[in-house]
Amino acid sequence: MGKRTFPLSRVYQLLEPGPVVMVTTARAGRANIMTMSWHTMLDFEPPIVACVISNRNYTFDILKETKECVINIPTLELAEKVVGCGHSSGRKTDKFKVFGLTQANASCVSAPLIEECYANLECKVVDEKMVAKYNLFIIEVLKAWINPALKDPRTIHHRGRGAFMVAGETIKLPSKMK
Amino acid sequence: MGKRTFPLSRVYQLLEPGPVVMVTTARAGRANIMTMSWHTMLDFEPPIVACVISNRNYTFDILKETKECVINIPTLELAEKVVGCGHSSGRKTDKFKVFGLTQANASCVSAPLIEECYANLECKVVDEKMVAKYNLFIIEVLKAWINPALKDPRTIHHRGRGAFMVAGETIKLPSKMK
Repeated sequence: MGKRTFPLSRVYQLLEPGPVVMVTTARAGRANIMTMSWHTMLDFEPPIVACVISNRNYTFDILKETKECVINIPTLELAEKVVGCGHSSGRKTDKFKVFGLTQANASCVSAPLIEECYANLECKVVDEKMVAKYNLFIIEVLKAWINPALKDPRTIHHRGRGAFMVAGETIKLPSKMK
Repeated sequence: MGKRTFPLSRVYQLLEPGPVVMVTTARAGRANIMTMSWHTMLDFEPPIVACVISNRNYTFDILKETKECVINIPTLELAEKVVGCGHSSGRKTDKFKVFGLTQANASCVSAPLIEECYANLECKVVDEKMVAKYNLFIIEVLKAWINPALKDPRTIHHRGRGAFMVAGETIKLPSKMK
């Protein structure tokens, strides 16, 4: 798939800018995809992420049962598929098939990677205390993959009501921050 | 200050793209600023936000005590001040003075708005159950302000180690998503 492993200590650099992501899960050999924008880093290493997955979503049920998922980070070329995945439910639709996306095997979890995404983070659920009240899952990234050719990925960032901000230029400032 | 109130039901549109923000707090008439990137929406209305504020930061102490803050959203012009605020501690520095930023009165909280930021969200802490373990505060936005002239704000998004992605173009896709 042309991807390389990416250091866990640098995973925050992929999620902190706030891209829309696609969460994959799998149960009984059947994979699903969910579009998600409500996530934040909680810790650097191991990388811990908090993310909101509504209990109305099919992914919620699978994640509660399997405790595994992959966070896939798409770029602009996939924007229509990202929206399409957000409109349909895995209860009725095989989204990989309908949207022409390719499954690749993960190495630590049973959920598949989306090959077309520029980065993939294999995750397990580590804390469900906030699920009942906020639908907030706390997950740990076990393994990260990246397309090393993409230095400044044109990630998409949801502004609501069909508007997406596309990642622009990257600037460098003298910073001591991690 | 040329700002208008912004509907609470649309606050998610400001935070969901993942901008770096500046959190202001105040205690005993003394205001502080903290740079923050680890935040996510938890609910639409009232807007609930989860954000990580390290217990090493001065802001952590003030927020624990006052339960109030303002999330201020800067744009590219403020990038150097944003980094500067991230490098210094309010324990030793009056950041408003050092970085030449202007305080404006909030209407619901005692923490000030940063006038130079294009949007300001007045917030109160509503849940501290995840603070001990993850430094994760859950806050509610009580009132929102925006500079109505700025349609496509050039927000900055932290990529780590001094790199910031600057918000690029906004595209529209046919979407039924909120």
